Amino acid sequence: VRAVDVIAAKRDGEEIPDGALREFVLGYARDEVADYQMAAFLMAGFLNGFSHAEAVALTAAMVASGDELDLSALSGPTVDKHSTGGVGDGTTLVVAPLAAELGMQVVKLSGRGLGHTGGTLDKLDAIPGMRTELSGDELIAQVEAIGLAVCAQTADLVPADKAMYALRDVTATVDNVALIASSVMSKKLAGGAQAILLDVKVGSGAFMKDPAHARELAELCVGLGEAGGRATGALITDMDQPLADAVGNATEVREAIEVLRGEREGRFSDLCVSLVGHMAALTGRAADAEDGITRARGALGSGAALERFRRFVEAQGGDPRIVEDPGLLPQAPLTHEVRAEDGGRLAAVDAEAIGRAAAGVGAGRRRKEDEIDLAVGIDFLASIGDEVEAGGIVARVLANDDATAEAAGREILAALEWSQAPVDPPPLVHAVIGERLGGT
Amino acid sequence: VRAVDVIAAKRDGEEIPDGALREFVLGYARDEVADYQMAAFLMAGFLNGFSHAEAVALTAAMVASGDELDLSALSGPTVDKHSTGGVGDGTTLVVAPLAAELGMQVVKLSGRGLGHTGGTLDKLDAIPGMRTELSGDELIAQVEAIGLAVCAQTADLVPADKAMYALRDVTATVDNVALIASSVMSKKLAGGAQAILLDVKVGSGAFMKDPAHARELAELCVGLGEAGGRATGALITDMDQPLADAVGNATEVREAIEVLRGEREGRFSDLCVSLVGHMAALTGRAADAEDGITRARGALGSGAALERFRRFVEAQGGDPRIVEDPGLLPQAPLTHEVRAEDGGRLAAVDAEAIGRAAAGVGAGRRRKEDEIDLAVGIDFLASIGDEVEAGGIVARVLANDDATAEAAGREILAALEWSQAPVDPPPLVHAVIGERLGGT
Repeated sequence: VRAVDVIAAKRDGEEIPDGALREFVLGYARDEVADYQMAAFLMAGFLNGFSHAEAVALTAAMVASGDELDLSALSGPTVDKHSTGGVGDGTTLVVAPLAAELGMQVVKLSGRGLGHTGGTLDKLDAIPGMRTELSGDELIAQVEAIGLAVCAQTADLVPADKAMYALRDVTATVDNVALIASSVMSKKLAGGAQAILLDVKVGSGAFMKDPAHARELAELCVGLGEAGGRATGALITDMDQPLADAVGNATEVREAIEVLRGEREGRFSDLCVSLVGHMAALTGRAADAEDGITRARGALGSGAALERFRRFVEAQGGDPRIVEDPGLLPQAPLTHEVRAEDGGRLAAVDAEAIGRAAAGVGAGRRRKEDEIDLAVGIDFLASIGDEVEAGGIVARVLANDDATAEAAGREILAALEWSQAPVDPPPLVHAVIGERLGGT
Repeated sequence: VRAVDVIAAKRDGEEIPDGALREFVLGYARDEVADYQMAAFLMAGFLNGFSHAEAVALTAAMVASGDELDLSALSGPTVDKHSTGGVGDGTTLVVAPLAAELGMQVVKLSGRGLGHTGGTLDKLDAIPGMRTELSGDELIAQVEAIGLAVCAQTADLVPADKAMYALRDVTATVDNVALIASSVMSKKLAGGAQAILLDVKVGSGAFMKDPAHARELAELCVGLGEAGGRATGALITDMDQPLADAVGNATEVREAIEVLRGEREGRFSDLCVSLVGHMAALTGRAADAEDGITRARGALGSGAALERFRRFVEAQGGDPRIVEDPGLLPQAPLTHEVRAEDGGRLAAVDAEAIGRAAAGVGAGRRRKEDEIDLAVGIDFLASIGDEVEAGGIVARVLANDDATAEAAGREILAALEWSQAPVDPPPLVHAVIGERLGGT
């Protein structure tokens, strides 16, 4: 099959046969199909769409373009979790130890990446001594011993995705459900876990602003996971406001420790428990999600999850004393309190603007080469529906200087809408997707 | 304007403003916009279409990407002619001297290129001694002296088209009317002539198989020429059978000489006369096309056109004796006669298959680096509607060996359909396009 014929068929709205699509993607990974040919193909697919069978073949070909993590030495059940990304969305720090405590094995390959705050690896960097580069053998041994590892990707997983993602970014072909889903799921499939739970965010702080699109993405991802032979499910969850209070790096670690201690309740804690409950149901470690959620909540209350986190930090060379003394984490020199002007009931939050404000004080990267300041960030204290008096505190900015802090404070206030009438808070979990979770 | 935003706008079906489109194309010519970005843009435009204003801006930007030929030193009127290509379509050899004889100045930049036979330059190469590389000064001086020059492009005309054409070929974005028209017309506009006549072919041997598509292309080309300030018109002409009898290189030169001598009538001669008549009307050298056609026919009958051709050959270093003695042109070692099996009335010809048969004996190139055999080819003697007896000659194959010649003979016979009932020959000129020609 010639590359130009695959492009022409996609252009003409035909369904590309599995074998031809696979050859095209693998050819691209081998530099035999040119960037410009892949770009034309992606645009044709963007405009004409991809069938479910095409998305399955595309995902399988992307997985086949590189190595796959071999988790067969683990006793299992292995499980992975992926969030499509949002603001204050550091669930891995809580979910991974909690899932391990419920008898699952969590192998989480994370990244640094671009965004309002750093990626999970940046957050772990805030823990003194923590190593995020593990060899394959170290990874397997640690997961078998303590049930979890969170580290950088070392093997050459899914090189086709890496190249295609970079290409999509500069050819206006990012926002297509099949391309997004195949990018997400190819990485999860190559990661080797037997079960995969997706946390698909929807709302003002998410890539997906629209619930119907989020559902379409979630359903396709679950379908691709199942086609890849993995127990897969998805939660569609709210990102119409920051998930956690903390938006930053060290500050998100601090909040995670408080949640693991059972001392901090709220939306972030609730979502972590819900995610773990559904992971337990997917892996057979709970009878169903409700049972899993009850057990996860118990592990938080008993201190067992916190102890699991401590062992995880220790295993990867981090200072375990941070569990008792979060003051050992990097601290920003100043805290600026952001107060409501007129107050009222918090009616809406532009969550993305809160993320940008955090990036503005130095918590994120715009370009790969940017340095992150691990100490700075925002603690956003108000939730939609809360009543706040005029002059009441809505956020604390953790910053290096007054000018930056005050600018972030103004951005935060501009991101809020107030109401004098009562406001219902949005549901935390909009929908559960996947037959294995009894979802729709 | 960022390139990715131009791509996104085209993807979303928006009309790109002139300035942004110009910047995008010029950026591409300067290597600031990447091949993969142009490929994504071309595919988006292929699927969403280009408006007339976009085609105009695209053409202007392509012209601006390189040099333009400066013909201001010529007394004029200058005229150019372009055929979209077919089989036995060597009209330039007759049209250029005939137009010069009617007082027009013809500057024809030609190519070698790929195809069933060589390009116009290859055909000229069949004339011993003929030079096709002229400097700019030589070109101007020759045209001012004798009214015509046919040579290779030396200046850096329309580099954006060259790059885009190569890209379209490997990204399945060739067959789009706006892209074809802007490619054709940018080269014609950069060529500098005041008047442009297009010969848009339609039929089994043409790129355009469908009359509606040919008309759409012709109308857009005429619109782009007019927008570029040139007197422009188009004929839509038949390519449901080879235009000339001769399909090859030396053999096409031989046939052209016979036509210029006024000794060979038929479709090829008729079309050359019609093209020149319309060129005369466009440039004001005739009152209208009919008047131009009458004058062109007169120039063939008087021997004036042949003399003009002789001066042209001499001016470019060729052996002028070929005009009297076509035997000086390269001769194939053998001639194989192809005879009708059952005979009847010739009802249809797969003209492209005749072209492929000519290429099969060595008259064309498949790849740039292929060598052409200037002596070989096909003389295809039957026209649609002709009655041929069983065993009557339909073609002569000019070849180097029997096996090749016989294979071509079989291909020719397979390309013919016969009827026992009378068959009307197709019209030679389907339509005249362009207000200046009184066309529709």
